[in-house]
Amino acid sequence: MTGPPQIAAAKDKTLFTPGPLTTSQTVKQAMLRDVGSRDVEFIETVRRIREALLALAGVSRETGYEAVLMQGSGTFGIESVIGSTVPPDGKLLVIINGAYGARIAKIAKVLRIDTTTLECTTNVAPVPADVGRMLTEDAAITNVAVVHCETTTGIINPIDQIGRVVRQHDKTYFVDSMSAFGAVPFDFEKCGIDFLVSSANKCIEGVPGFSFAICRRDSLHATEGWARSLSLDLLAQWRGLEQNGQFRFTPPTHAILAFDQALRELQAEGGVEGRATRYRGNYESLVDGMREMGFSEYLSPKLQGTIITAFHYPNHPRFQFDEFYTRLNDKGFVIYPGKMSNIDCFRIGNIGRLFECDILALLTAIRATLSKMDIELPCS
Amino acid sequence: MTGPPQIAAAKDKTLFTPGPLTTSQTVKQAMLRDVGSRDVEFIETVRRIREALLALAGVSRETGYEAVLMQGSGTFGIESVIGSTVPPDGKLLVIINGAYGARIAKIAKVLRIDTTTLECTTNVAPVPADVGRMLTEDAAITNVAVVHCETTTGIINPIDQIGRVVRQHDKTYFVDSMSAFGAVPFDFEKCGIDFLVSSANKCIEGVPGFSFAICRRDSLHATEGWARSLSLDLLAQWRGLEQNGQFRFTPPTHAILAFDQALRELQAEGGVEGRATRYRGNYESLVDGMREMGFSEYLSPKLQGTIITAFHYPNHPRFQFDEFYTRLNDKGFVIYPGKMSNIDCFRIGNIGRLFECDILALLTAIRATLSKMDIELPCS
Repeated sequence: MTGPPQIAAAKDKTLFTPGPLTTSQTVKQAMLRDVGSRDVEFIETVRRIREALLALAGVSRETGYEAVLMQGSGTFGIESVIGSTVPPDGKLLVIINGAYGARIAKIAKVLRIDTTTLECTTNVAPVPADVGRMLTEDAAITNVAVVHCETTTGIINPIDQIGRVVRQHDKTYFVDSMSAFGAVPFDFEKCGIDFLVSSANKCIEGVPGFSFAICRRDSLHATEGWARSLSLDLLAQWRGLEQNGQFRFTPPTHAILAFDQALRELQAEGGVEGRATRYRGNYESLVDGMREMGFSEYLSPKLQGTIITAFHYPNHPRFQFDEFYTRLNDKGFVIYPGKMSNIDCFRIGNIGRLFECDILALLTAIRATLSKMDIELPCS
Repeated sequence: MTGPPQIAAAKDKTLFTPGPLTTSQTVKQAMLRDVGSRDVEFIETVRRIREALLALAGVSRETGYEAVLMQGSGTFGIESVIGSTVPPDGKLLVIINGAYGARIAKIAKVLRIDTTTLECTTNVAPVPADVGRMLTEDAAITNVAVVHCETTTGIINPIDQIGRVVRQHDKTYFVDSMSAFGAVPFDFEKCGIDFLVSSANKCIEGVPGFSFAICRRDSLHATEGWARSLSLDLLAQWRGLEQNGQFRFTPPTHAILAFDQALRELQAEGGVEGRATRYRGNYESLVDGMREMGFSEYLSPKLQGTIITAFHYPNHPRFQFDEFYTRLNDKGFVIYPGKMSNIDCFRIGNIGRLFECDILALLTAIRATLSKMDIELPCS
């Protein structure tokens, strides 16, 4: 731990992961400042960010919505919503087709919230009519939670159709849009969402340090006295921000300055539509190149989003994922392991400051790596 | 929100606050990188930080201690320890002589933990014998919590003597050393501490984004099944870090890189002793200069730490704190309001990348501000 500041010995690796991501240099440079967390300039930055998040969701304070920032990772934001918005005697239905749906149910269990689940296999979208049936059969259910883009596989779940059913039954609707918000266009009000959570270090391309919730104000107001934590109390956090523009507890000021810059860059790219277009381009280049080498995707293309793609391991005796991963890592390309216990997949993300040239470089590196591993093409 | 990245129009203000702080440029520059949170390099950084934190505390894994990093602000770290280490049928005694002691009791209340308090006035140190008496009279108490440096006033509480009493009664001892750890020398083992929490953006002079707990391993092991939160589960967080060196949920990678650099700079300054010396110099310059202008401190010097000092408002009809604060702010000096409901004080912090020249500049600015406010010296 001695000596002068570390000097970079190499170019940073490119991250093909679901976050933390490769971000722009200008986003990182926004962190080269120390601002007081109770100072006017920072208060104005937080106000601007909250307004921009509502605009990104296509809603506003005037139409009855509020944005709340919450310290910690995305999971902290999810726990904040689950712990603050399910009534003390409420019951939560969690729709699960991957690890992140399962995590919501786990949070509820730790918080001793009465919970039921609708589980599908990971390569299938939940059926809205099944949700309707469960809500009809179990009148005790008060809240429904679903993941928007399940990062386990990259599947995009039908949050609009599920939302319609939840709304018909007059339940509170929570969408975990962690890895989709900002790059997957959808109609927030039409989906009937009460609470949505995403994180600074996903499609908005900021750095990690906080998450945010977009809340229907009436639904938020209704949660008085329900929070099961002081730190993660969603309503109190909102009230603090409203009262004087400040966080109740120390905010990650540098990550917030970076996020302010990231929002500018998102707007400069054409907002959600512009970013979705770039990610779609990345996705298409990736899948074309991977298929050409013989890889196949885990999901059917009609369910597959453009955020992250799971690929089957090639059916080849010399393919060892750890070796494949390490060789790519050594070349400066960080891919992502699978997250399913029963299926051998790895994942490649398209989000962050990645362009077609990055995808083409990755594909070249994969080709070279397979050759080094003595795996002939097509590989499966 | 349009246009190119913002360009600084002015020098950043100097922060005389208890954090976020003014940090070194090299600490901030360490954030100009994106590293994968599951990548070998980051795992090694986290390992190095955990080891350095134990060394700072004067303990080690070999002597039975563990360091756990937790996402979020310092309060999240406090809630993590309170929510994870008080048994389900346990009872917490909180020693309170300021807002941060009161916050611990509030956390416990929200978590529905049976809690009793020992309250002193804010300018008095808690008496260890009073703690002993409460522990004798109420055998149900299992855990005792106290704040090390109560930022409300800057008082340093006698954590060693209280610890001796807690140890005699065989209770679990928690010290909130948020604004002291790293710059106030003390003997961790002699104090008998089971759990201590501090934060990245205090005396170690990193940026905000996470806190950390230093834990006696046996005490940590004993908490199996007690956590009242998934995100803030201290034992699970430790197990995650032990299992594969990774965080369970996305860590604030940039804040952690900054912290790694901040630890190097702390060591280069001579560790805890070296930093304590600089802060003491800042404190002495500040108090000398303030007294010369007629200001008086809220605390008796023998109770006062060197982290932050509370000063009485001058007894002058033209002294308005808001005007005083704003005028100093406009000159680039950010001081801190008071936090006591019944006493009119403001606070000035000595921590962060501040040196005697910064204190002298602040004193000059205060003198000029009082002159502008037409307040003759000495002012009280």
